[in-house]
Amino acid sequence: MAITLYELVGRDASRPFSPHCWKVRLALRHKGLDFQSATAGFTEIPALENGASKIVPILKDGETLVADSFAIADYLETAYPDRPSLFGGEGGRALSRFVESWSQRTLHPALARLLVLDIHDCLAESDQAYFRQSREKALGTSLEAFVADREARVEPFLKSLEPLRALLARQAFLGGENPLFADHIVFGAFQWARVSSSFRFLPAEDPVAAWFERCLQLYEGEGAKVPAAA
Amino acid sequence: MAITLYELVGRDASRPFSPHCWKVRLALRHKGLDFQSATAGFTEIPALENGASKIVPILKDGETLVADSFAIADYLETAYPDRPSLFGGEGGRALSRFVESWSQRTLHPALARLLVLDIHDCLAESDQAYFRQSREKALGTSLEAFVADREARVEPFLKSLEPLRALLARQAFLGGENPLFADHIVFGAFQWARVSSSFRFLPAEDPVAAWFERCLQLYEGEGAKVPAAA
Repeated sequence: MAITLYELVGRDASRPFSPHCWKVRLALRHKGLDFQSATAGFTEIPALENGASKIVPILKDGETLVADSFAIADYLETAYPDRPSLFGGEGGRALSRFVESWSQRTLHPALARLLVLDIHDCLAESDQAYFRQSREKALGTSLEAFVADREARVEPFLKSLEPLRALLARQAFLGGENPLFADHIVFGAFQWARVSSSFRFLPAEDPVAAWFERCLQLYEGEGAKVPAAA
Repeated sequence: MAITLYELVGRDASRPFSPHCWKVRLALRHKGLDFQSATAGFTEIPALENGASKIVPILKDGETLVADSFAIADYLETAYPDRPSLFGGEGGRALSRFVESWSQRTLHPALARLLVLDIHDCLAESDQAYFRQSREKALGTSLEAFVADREARVEPFLKSLEPLRALLARQAFLGGENPLFADHIVFGAFQWARVSSSFRFLPAEDPVAAWFERCLQLYEGEGAKVPAAA
């Protein structure tokens, strides 16, 4: 059966940038599954698969449609149990939810304060108005004002990575010696930044940068195939 | 074989308060293993078991000695594979290290700023001088100064719990429907606070408080047996 992954893109359809879509892209590669990518801009998502979902990623596997990155990982783990595991057992599945929660509540809000204007700028013109209006309403300020002091926000962001950094002093991946979906989750956040923005905030000597580089090289360099924003 | 758990106490030997010792206490109960507790004050630790370790917890299982809470959990998981699992598989073991890292780097430093003087005050007199000297040297200030603005530190601490709080909106325990060692890890931090200090900082309506209460009732109320500091 053919697998299709619907991914979010901006002006350049060869540069998917959604953190959640990247999680699934790596998860599919981790499982060794072939898939084709189908891309959509923000305002095209509601029409995908007859309105199946308001969000991407959407995975279509034969007749099965699944939306939401963790739900897709759950689906893949169940549907392809003989492929390499994304969770390493039930405990790993439950604790991957904590990693997701940490990533969503710690990394994503902090990265948004660095990136949101750059994300806007890489969108297709037809998506920019929607993005600006919806985000400015949610943020209560202009995109420009929201990122105005981003240089000053780098240091507290780097400090917030300390739980990850300390872990990586002990093991190569969140999953231990080898990556699991928990790595894909956190990778997605940093790949979002790398693809959508030329703002570089992670010092090369940071163990988190070394881990991210390892993740970029996984699965025949799946993450590295899309060059960093220039 | 008889199991002995060496635990840290203050003046009152019936009130173990070390977060790391509590992790192991719950882990032993989770495994359904009988054990006896042996207690020591800070300055008595180096003499335990002929200087086997500078830290507690120390577990003695027959002729085997293991120190460090995670090493003990690893040992118990390997030595008692037929008992309920502490990790739920290899993925859970690896990701429990992330939970430990988050707890150590986020919760512990913040709790120390709320509690360190209260911890001092509950120690035996023979330990107080050691504790004050070593901690004040490490902190670069007096214990009193370190906690002076603790009321103002509660709000940022509660905010730092957001990854845990968001997770608990989805599942009853870090381990999912049932607790794992990851729960014991985070429980240890809050039990440290509950036993050593009467300073209450967690609003009753916080989902984290509800989870902590569930943990206190686990294993026939093992955590609740020691009353909260008055």
